[in-house]
Amino acid sequence: MVKRNQDMAKLQAGYLFPEINRRKKEFLEKNPDAKIISLGIGNTTKPVTPHIDKALSNAAAGLGTKKGYSGYGNEQGLTELREKIAFKIYNGTVSRDEIFVSDGAKPDIGRLQLLFGNDAVIAVQDPAYPVYIDSSVMYGKTENYNEKTNTFGSIVYLPCTPENNFFPDLSKIRKVDVIFFCSPNNPTGAVATREQLQQLVDYARKNKSIIIFDAAYSEYIQDSNIPKSIYEIDGAKEVAIEVNSFSKSVGFAGVRLGWTVVPNELKFDNGIQVRQDWDRVLTTLFNGASNISQKGALAALDNRGLKEMEETVSYYMENAKIIKATLQELGYEAYGGDNAPYIWARMKTTKSWEAFDQLLQEANIITTPGIGFGQSGEYFLRFSAFGHSEDIKEAIQRLKVHLK
Amino acid sequence: MVKRNQDMAKLQAGYLFPEINRRKKEFLEKNPDAKIISLGIGNTTKPVTPHIDKALSNAAAGLGTKKGYSGYGNEQGLTELREKIAFKIYNGTVSRDEIFVSDGAKPDIGRLQLLFGNDAVIAVQDPAYPVYIDSSVMYGKTENYNEKTNTFGSIVYLPCTPENNFFPDLSKIRKVDVIFFCSPNNPTGAVATREQLQQLVDYARKNKSIIIFDAAYSEYIQDSNIPKSIYEIDGAKEVAIEVNSFSKSVGFAGVRLGWTVVPNELKFDNGIQVRQDWDRVLTTLFNGASNISQKGALAALDNRGLKEMEETVSYYMENAKIIKATLQELGYEAYGGDNAPYIWARMKTTKSWEAFDQLLQEANIITTPGIGFGQSGEYFLRFSAFGHSEDIKEAIQRLKVHLK
Repeated sequence: MVKRNQDMAKLQAGYLFPEINRRKKEFLEKNPDAKIISLGIGNTTKPVTPHIDKALSNAAAGLGTKKGYSGYGNEQGLTELREKIAFKIYNGTVSRDEIFVSDGAKPDIGRLQLLFGNDAVIAVQDPAYPVYIDSSVMYGKTENYNEKTNTFGSIVYLPCTPENNFFPDLSKIRKVDVIFFCSPNNPTGAVATREQLQQLVDYARKNKSIIIFDAAYSEYIQDSNIPKSIYEIDGAKEVAIEVNSFSKSVGFAGVRLGWTVVPNELKFDNGIQVRQDWDRVLTTLFNGASNISQKGALAALDNRGLKEMEETVSYYMENAKIIKATLQELGYEAYGGDNAPYIWARMKTTKSWEAFDQLLQEANIITTPGIGFGQSGEYFLRFSAFGHSEDIKEAIQRLKVHLK
Repeated sequence: MVKRNQDMAKLQAGYLFPEINRRKKEFLEKNPDAKIISLGIGNTTKPVTPHIDKALSNAAAGLGTKKGYSGYGNEQGLTELREKIAFKIYNGTVSRDEIFVSDGAKPDIGRLQLLFGNDAVIAVQDPAYPVYIDSSVMYGKTENYNEKTNTFGSIVYLPCTPENNFFPDLSKIRKVDVIFFCSPNNPTGAVATREQLQQLVDYARKNKSIIIFDAAYSEYIQDSNIPKSIYEIDGAKEVAIEVNSFSKSVGFAGVRLGWTVVPNELKFDNGIQVRQDWDRVLTTLFNGASNISQKGALAALDNRGLKEMEETVSYYMENAKIIKATLQELGYEAYGGDNAPYIWARMKTTKSWEAFDQLLQEANIITTPGIGFGQSGEYFLRFSAFGHSEDIKEAIQRLKVHLK
């Protein structure tokens, strides 16, 4: 038969979240009456707010009428939506043509790999959302996995830990081609300051690198001094792509909608615009986001929608606040949670998967083991604030009993 | 700056359909009052039928309630939907676990490229849906484009023309690793018989190839002797992946929903199941199809939905019938249209783009130039039956005037 893609063979075990699901399922088979509370995967639980939901259901109903029906649209998204994102999210500092609507940040991160050749050197924060590394592996940009160091050859890991205030010392990093950078960070909940982001942009300008800035949690930033977009930084349009999503801000995790910004100024070494290739990737390998989802996003960006977005964010941020406070009261180092829906807690001397299993067995709480995000995540657990507030309150009570 | 992916640089001009749009736009700028009728891109125009549309709008409305809300689902799709596809489309001959729901056939074709290494030899029908070749190029599986032959080095082209009854002589084809095969065919409208498909499967078994069978138009098959799925052929589960879609059968082109079947029996040369890697591709680089779209698809597969699907197909097939009859009356060789929504007509001695431009300028009708689908498509135009029937009737009148 045909040979397997040898890059797929380099991947390690399963993708993190299916592995968590597997352990959960196994536990539930043995303990069918357990009432599990998930503080694990960042999966939204709050219903879509009324104004935005009305737009979704109107769009769906409209498809049954001659006037409301639409088939294929532009692969890049509705012009009206691109424009609204440019003005409502970016204040007009990026233009409509630089916005590309998609079915989400995760699929876009995969597709972005096509912009770069196999010899591109990739850097990632450590810990990081696993898709940055796994997509780099699948697209042939890495050497084999080294079981001793738990790293892939040729990937540059940038440790982001409490010790360096979750920001790497870029003066010590060799030249790389592509840097994945996420702020507010998944999993640590850390946010990069304006000064830090300026250092990042300056590094990229100096080293002729491209930053892929993952801003999927930008609406969770409460501190007005923290940039919500990389394009608030001078010079960023020449070096950065930004990925974003409606999943967490308005609960579209299942509805599927995101976008990517590729500025006109961003070019390859031969002078060709990166956005030209991105446009070709989308028109050839993507067929546009669902027309229903796009109509929902339009509503999310009008005045009532933006107000509802704030309500949704506040709801989850209230959860984040009490999770963090509880962990700290119990004597654990806990980070994030102030401008992000994740709390990153050091489990003292217990390793990640062990701490995960203990909380599952004893408190029936699902978390995410820090090691799943990279070597620097060992001894940490990520707590997600995306549960129902009543569940979070019960989880807090259980933590107080079991995490003493 | 960073180097461009050299595989992207190999691509020729724009993707076909954006180029058609560009010419249409240019024409409309000069002729703002022209009433253009599109027989071009296979874009559905008939509203979603009532029962299926009700399911879409109910699902959307339900997202506003605690009971009806859902965030991320399984990347592979709702279990209930996978099961329903297995039973309603495949009569239970494939199992639930072999069905992977997606946002459409086009994105799946791109992702399927990740299953094979860069040294995999790809074969395509000529003419063919451009995404098979373009995705192969982008994923590094081809040599440069040869401007003299209009072909990519290392791609094996299988001419499918009236002269060979649109089916290649497989006894003369060298061993290839992956064959893209589409029946009912886009663009020719040809359907492969059971005997022809058995030859295809036998070729793949003998040569240890994998068939990627594109069945996106299978519901348009009217002749009960023609297989709707490659899995109706003995031995196919060991050699074939099947891609399919709700776009054309129930008008979900904009709603976005498709699926891919990867049988348990299909293995790489090292014995590893192909479905294992496909599962990893989807869980890592995809986040599931929209929950709203999936609920619509569930309704499309219950008894009322299946009846509505037949109505939708009949509506477009009536268009196909009159387009084909008209072209034949006018003295053109016309193929397809009996079991497919496309009519493939030879424009006598006029080249494809010239014929396209003439029909645009004179009759204000958009078609698709055959050459856009490959070298064997020169002198042909593809006529799509996906218009409103009243527009098709008017188009017919115009053709009678301008295609004499």
